[in-house]
Amino acid sequence: MQKDKKIKPVPEPTIKRLPVYLHYLNKARLEGVINISAPTIAGELKLDPTQVVKDLSFTGIKGRTKIGYNIYELIHYLEEYLGFNKTNNAFLVGAGNLGSALMAYQAGQSLGLKILAAFDISADRIGEKTGQVNVLHMNNFGEMVKRLNVSIGILTTPEHVAQEMAEKMIACRIKAIWNLTPAYLKLPENIIVQNTSMYSNVAVLLKRLEESDVVI
Amino acid sequence: MQKDKKIKPVPEPTIKRLPVYLHYLNKARLEGVINISAPTIAGELKLDPTQVVKDLSFTGIKGRTKIGYNIYELIHYLEEYLGFNKTNNAFLVGAGNLGSALMAYQAGQSLGLKILAAFDISADRIGEKTGQVNVLHMNNFGEMVKRLNVSIGILTTPEHVAQEMAEKMIACRIKAIWNLTPAYLKLPENIIVQNTSMYSNVAVLLKRLEESDVVI
Repeated sequence: MQKDKKIKPVPEPTIKRLPVYLHYLNKARLEGVINISAPTIAGELKLDPTQVVKDLSFTGIKGRTKIGYNIYELIHYLEEYLGFNKTNNAFLVGAGNLGSALMAYQAGQSLGLKILAAFDISADRIGEKTGQVNVLHMNNFGEMVKRLNVSIGILTTPEHVAQEMAEKMIACRIKAIWNLTPAYLKLPENIIVQNTSMYSNVAVLLKRLEESDVVI
Repeated sequence: MQKDKKIKPVPEPTIKRLPVYLHYLNKARLEGVINISAPTIAGELKLDPTQVVKDLSFTGIKGRTKIGYNIYELIHYLEEYLGFNKTNNAFLVGAGNLGSALMAYQAGQSLGLKILAAFDISADRIGEKTGQVNVLHMNNFGEMVKRLNVSIGILTTPEHVAQEMAEKMIACRIKAIWNLTPAYLKLPENIIVQNTSMYSNVAVLLKRLEESDVVI
């Protein structure tokens, strides 16, 4: 308590589970649930109850013995903690299939991010509109970043231009990049990069399938 | 060594890093690299060298002092270990934007999976073709699974039908599901599910951005 200025970094597995709780709780709320306990959440999501209590404690909420959490309060704490109740504006670079998928995806359901515009260099994509997002020419990127004060960029270009486009984004003062290309980006230390590698997820799936075959 | 039948499960973070090494090594190989050391790999990918050595040891390869790994040998071990040198056939269910993105994605670059066909229930998608993958009616799913002996399913439907479609896939003897929907699937214990949540990745990005703002 003496050092409350020093923020303890939350473990990444915890951060990744928090939106899963939030998603589940929103569904439970729609089904009329008012109070919910950690063991119930754990049971539904096949997690360890102690882990659930620990994860949720990072948001600052405290459950009550025998009652558990008030679901509205818990959702509020989670949204607040994750920043999902704020509008986190982002620009997308690379309006191909994956980029369009994200634009359409966010139109239907909150992603925690709002894609304000998409950018591309291919003439036949510029002017298109997916999920209410317009595709603009990459030449306008810098001006738009400044105008709308956006600091998050989503990278969905082909791999061979990923590094170049990431550098362009940074030159235009983007501070955080969600990299959905398989490229490994080399960027300055102060830039936040979140890699979502499709490969890595496939690898885990295949390995588990192989292990299960061994067991059978 | 007495219990060599007992396979020690590999930590998931390791499995997720292995395709990243593989991807990087393939690029280095094209640039003419013959031998590569763990510290070099670690330096390029901003990882701890000890971690790299440990990760790579799971594939069974041994590096040589001062020389490191032969890059061809290392790539071979990684591909073998990850099963990326085999053809891992998969069917995709839900040929919307995200599904199409995956179909197009695998056409250009190996995903470790080969999507043999896609399935949907929407009349205007059936008969379409993306990245050489045909979209068939979901009614044909069971027959096609049997015919082509596929055990991996990729789920890219809208969230509200995800559970139903996953159950249909399992009823047709799919053994592993790569779930790219935000739905939390409730499936029998013996089914392997790999969730790739876009939410979770966004959450990590936002949290890191927030932490960096605190520091600045």
